[in-house]
Amino acid sequence: MKSKINKIAIMASGGDAPGMNSAIRAAVLQARAKDIEPYLVIEGYKGLVEDNIVLASKYDVNDYINVSGTFIYSARYPQFKDIEVRKIAKSNLDKRGIDALLVIGGDGSYQGAQKLHELAVKTVALPGTIDNDITSSDTTIGYDTALNSIVSAIDNIRSTAKSHNSCFIVETMGHGASDLALYSGIATGAELIVSNDLILSEDEVINKVDEIMNVNKHRSMIIVVSEFIFESVQNLAKKIQEKTKVNTRAVVLGHIQRGGIPSARERIDATRMATNAINYLAQGQSGIAIGIINGKTTAIPILEALAFKPDNKEALKKRTLKYSLLNSQKTR
Amino acid sequence: MKSKINKIAIMASGGDAPGMNSAIRAAVLQARAKDIEPYLVIEGYKGLVEDNIVLASKYDVNDYINVSGTFIYSARYPQFKDIEVRKIAKSNLDKRGIDALLVIGGDGSYQGAQKLHELAVKTVALPGTIDNDITSSDTTIGYDTALNSIVSAIDNIRSTAKSHNSCFIVETMGHGASDLALYSGIATGAELIVSNDLILSEDEVINKVDEIMNVNKHRSMIIVVSEFIFESVQNLAKKIQEKTKVNTRAVVLGHIQRGGIPSARERIDATRMATNAINYLAQGQSGIAIGIINGKTTAIPILEALAFKPDNKEALKKRTLKYSLLNSQKTR
Amino acid sequence: MKSKINKIAIMASGGDAPGMNSAIRAAVLQARAKDIEPYLVIEGYKGLVEDNIVLASKYDVNDYINVSGTFIYSARYPQFKDIEVRKIAKSNLDKRGIDALLVIGGDGSYQGAQKLHELAVKTVALPGTIDNDITSSDTTIGYDTALNSIVSAIDNIRSTAKSHNSCFIVETMGHGASDLALYSGIATGAELIVSNDLILSEDEVINKVDEIMNVNKHRSMIIVVSEFIFESVQNLAKKIQEKTKVNTRAVVLGHIQRGGIPSARERIDATRMATNAINYLAQGQSGIAIGIINGKTTAIPILEALAFKPDNKEALKKRTLKYSLLNSQKTR
Amino acid sequence: MKSKINKIAIMASGGDAPGMNSAIRAAVLQARAKDIEPYLVIEGYKGLVEDNIVLASKYDVNDYINVSGTFIYSARYPQFKDIEVRKIAKSNLDKRGIDALLVIGGDGSYQGAQKLHELAVKTVALPGTIDNDITSSDTTIGYDTALNSIVSAIDNIRSTAKSHNSCFIVETMGHGASDLALYSGIATGAELIVSNDLILSEDEVINKVDEIMNVNKHRSMIIVVSEFIFESVQNLAKKIQEKTKVNTRAVVLGHIQRGGIPSARERIDATRMATNAINYLAQGQSGIAIGIINGKTTAIPILEALAFKPDNKEALKKRTLKYSLLNSQKTR
Repeated sequence: MKSKINKIAIMASGGDAPGMNSAIRAAVLQARAKDIEPYLVIEGYKGLVEDNIVLASKYDVNDYINVSGTFIYSARYPQFKDIEVRKIAKSNLDKRGIDALLVIGGDGSYQGAQKLHELAVKTVALPGTIDNDITSSDTTIGYDTALNSIVSAIDNIRSTAKSHNSCFIVETMGHGASDLALYSGIATGAELIVSNDLILSEDEVINKVDEIMNVNKHRSMIIVVSEFIFESVQNLAKKIQEKTKVNTRAVVLGHIQRGGIPSARERIDATRMATNAINYLAQGQSGIAIGIINGKTTAIPILEALAFKPDNKEALKKRTLKYSLLNSQKTR
Repeated sequence: MKSKINKIAIMASGGDAPGMNSAIRAAVLQARAKDIEPYLVIEGYKGLVEDNIVLASKYDVNDYINVSGTFIYSARYPQFKDIEVRKIAKSNLDKRGIDALLVIGGDGSYQGAQKLHELAVKTVALPGTIDNDITSSDTTIGYDTALNSIVSAIDNIRSTAKSHNSCFIVETMGHGASDLALYSGIATGAELIVSNDLILSEDEVINKVDEIMNVNKHRSMIIVVSEFIFESVQNLAKKIQEKTKVNTRAVVLGHIQRGGIPSARERIDATRMATNAINYLAQGQSGIAIGIINGKTTAIPILEALAFKPDNKEALKKRTLKYSLLNSQKTR
Repeated sequence: MKSKINKIAIMASGGDAPGMNSAIRAAVLQARAKDIEPYLVIEGYKGLVEDNIVLASKYDVNDYINVSGTFIYSARYPQFKDIEVRKIAKSNLDKRGIDALLVIGGDGSYQGAQKLHELAVKTVALPGTIDNDITSSDTTIGYDTALNSIVSAIDNIRSTAKSHNSCFIVETMGHGASDLALYSGIATGAELIVSNDLILSEDEVINKVDEIMNVNKHRSMIIVVSEFIFESVQNLAKKIQEKTKVNTRAVVLGHIQRGGIPSARERIDATRMATNAINYLAQGQSGIAIGIINGKTTAIPILEALAFKPDNKEALKKRTLKYSLLNSQKTR
Repeated sequence: MKSKINKIAIMASGGDAPGMNSAIRAAVLQARAKDIEPYLVIEGYKGLVEDNIVLASKYDVNDYINVSGTFIYSARYPQFKDIEVRKIAKSNLDKRGIDALLVIGGDGSYQGAQKLHELAVKTVALPGTIDNDITSSDTTIGYDTALNSIVSAIDNIRSTAKSHNSCFIVETMGHGASDLALYSGIATGAELIVSNDLILSEDEVINKVDEIMNVNKHRSMIIVVSEFIFESVQNLAKKIQEKTKVNTRAVVLGHIQRGGIPSARERIDATRMATNAINYLAQGQSGIAIGIINGKTTAIPILEALAFKPDNKEALKKRTLKYSLLNSQKTR
């Protein structure tokens, strides 16, 4: 079937996430397979407005399938909220005859994509963020790799904790979302997980440490904590140690969670979603958000994606919470 | 709710797979949480018959959450097909007052589990194999880690292939199943995938190499091949080189695919499934196979699992096949 | 040759380090090869005093060759400075007929080993710390693995830094020693390294960021900083951003540096040094520190090790410093 | 000091090795630091003759510090043995005013470098090969990373071997050199190592398997074997299984050993040697081979490097051999 568009631009926006490059590669290859000429926007919405748009043939995109970050760069660009600025973006696309735009990013990026759609730029959005907080997809591009990076870091910390009979607080990223904290906690047998699905006070945490380390006599204890819940996990560690006499330390994982070689699943999901996004654009569609739900690629209006709260995702988190505390039992 | 059983035995069977230990740990912890006393069977069905059954408290199961292989060992044991042998197994459980059995393994193991169920041993089965060929679960325990190991190996090979303008054939495991070959191929941008979903003759492979390397002028080419399709990939590599003059090598990945630190997702899925399995056993259920389908834990009769061919899984493979060939385009 | 001792105890002390387990395994195997019965002390000097000493045959030591941390645990134990306490340690060894002691740890542990030697306990010390600050060995057990962990973390951070045109400060461990910061900086192409060999003021760092990011127009900048040089790298990042307008973040790597699967070199060096240590003990020697210098295993008095400042190590650091700044050139 | 040369060309030759890119990057940066203009030769001696020489500024070399393979490609080129062909290479350098050449490769590449030196091209050689068989350096660029890749693969295999009470033969690369086999064997606690320093007959191997698995009752056994010693390790595995009844498998690791993200040490050594090489060239020197011996960078005539057999390296191998057999003891 003849594509309804001739030229497409691809961009990444917001925080970088592993697998974005895999998605960009797949989009470029699928565009070519559909006889659409692919362009790349450098530095997201900023580049779109500043006319930093290049032919994809400038790069050998296959080289980036397993490289983290985004080789077309990203940037924060609050100015894009101004409609006059967005009109410049549109005119930069128009003057090259670019019919359509693929945006990879988090929910801020989805807002921009929707606004461009409203300006009659054919726009499709892919979920790209480690936080897994785009509700129109079961997992976002970047999440699986970040989860593996966190799990590997906590594995390292566990061996030190066991060697020294200690408690460690590990703070993960995730913004308001709980998935990185919750699932990394399950995967590492954390004794306690404090996430937005289960917020505890400092006193409750202290009591739990006392119970697990002093009463149940665990050799070590890992507490995984989502960012922004406690003001300072370093201070919390000090308080725990004072009150419980348990040797306690805190580690803020920070930006090591954002890089990392994309996992197999990351690259596969990114490839499937990006290919699908190009297919939708080739059909002339716009204003839609691509995802994978229950193993199948999906497409819903971006507006719905921004409002969407799928039951299964919430329910899943609730259900999984119980697995997270398995390890608080008395030891032998 | 009071559990209907008091003692449970847990065993691994068939080929070992990363994440089996994560499942065993979760089963032990969940059993204790339900006031069920957990036992471990050493060396699978063999140990069951030879009475090699120990209290789980002999081990600190938390130590194994991130360790590949299976610390309770596995073994092949064809003798289990004999009903008299199976009766010995049952009597070994009976004499300890063990009410129920959790079996982790591949389809051979499922057959044994069904036979024990028919002997009135309460039995539940978990899918444990890197091959992802248990149709009652979207993914099996071991698959995600093996896929990551293969992808990492092919990444290594790609950098050599590019450096030397070469073609590499990479043979993966998978028995009759295609998933390891198909999805590792997609994740690494393989130029050709030969799996049970798309079997090619040697001549067809040779022609494809000629097209991609000599006509389309790729710098490198990766061919991922499922085991048992070609008699010898080493010989195929020689034939390719003779016919196309393209420098060609073959690598049989072999047992490096079976080990590896379990991925985050592996441990999470293993934990969810094992916890669920204990819950079913605690309710007095038997003869069922636990899985995760569309993100939700499921339970169906083992007999159905052995016969089951879910449409979504087959359709998914067919659909994804097209993504795998993206990279055969002309280079710039 | 008949060994002059019959029983030996092996212990880890101070902060755990990857490869300690490889050393313990090698020591146990080599002791058996010399017909010496090996014991293990649980929790370092604390266990020695509290009589927590077990036969090595309780463990299958081969299982730990590639496991980080220390399976015989470690602990801080300032009480050991008291000679009466040390006499209890000696009597615990004596009552079992244990002739000799192998201590693996950092310089605090070496002090204790020397004191026991002075009490006529035959004692040999192995360098076990990630900090690489034991001068009687070119590298310490734990250093190579920690260096690889840091380098991998900085690689992750670099991809985010490039994607976002940013500067990152990365704080490493190392106590007073510079090696972790210096060499991880070289290995990752850091634009600036602030270690104890080259301490800069906050203003000097700010000027360097301005030069590299604003004048030389680097796409990203990594500053590796040894711990304890700046009060808060988080605050320094804020100051840099204020003064230079360069997007700047800080990451304190923390305890992820202490774990990690021991590298090949780590295990080999640990094996060589531990084997050699047993050989010295078997000859009846005491009060010596084992190392590897210029590729050869060495043995010098512990007292010298505590005082030793080999020229080559210092000179090496000075010479390598210049490599670290290579990447501050103007970009194309 | 003013450099005696103005333009330099850098090339990789022979089999690719991880860390080559780190060396190329360092050479480019150091050349610029000395006001020498760097060029890159694409595809080694082939590119030199076919005039495939580009300005280094075409690439951002910093991007490759942690990328395996070689981004300037390599190739086999036997035609270079012909002096007339070499004269073409020289004229291609001359016509650009390139004064000097840095060659990174194995001993074949060293031969070519020496021949160019004899044609009055100022030439310096760096040891780049995973085999560690360049005697003028304690370690070669690529060796440490390859060793880590092998060790990681054998760790995977060990967990399967233990789970199934099996013996595995693992064949490593190394050409005539023993280091990859010998040291990976030590690092993984292999029960048997067959390398060029200790060649065994098939019957001797069979007897050793019988002793270790049937008499000493090991749970698993790893035999590391250098390539080219046995005609087929697959066949040897079959023979062992027939004679000893021990479940035995073989894995030929192949080209996964050649890729892999360069280790910390790899990048540091590559950086030190490459920087040093540029310094020598800047002084107008030629015909020399750079290395690191006893932790210090060294430079000797290429001719000597080709003939050199340093005692310490040989002696080291002999001494370490004994550590490799530690694990053949009786189990508990």
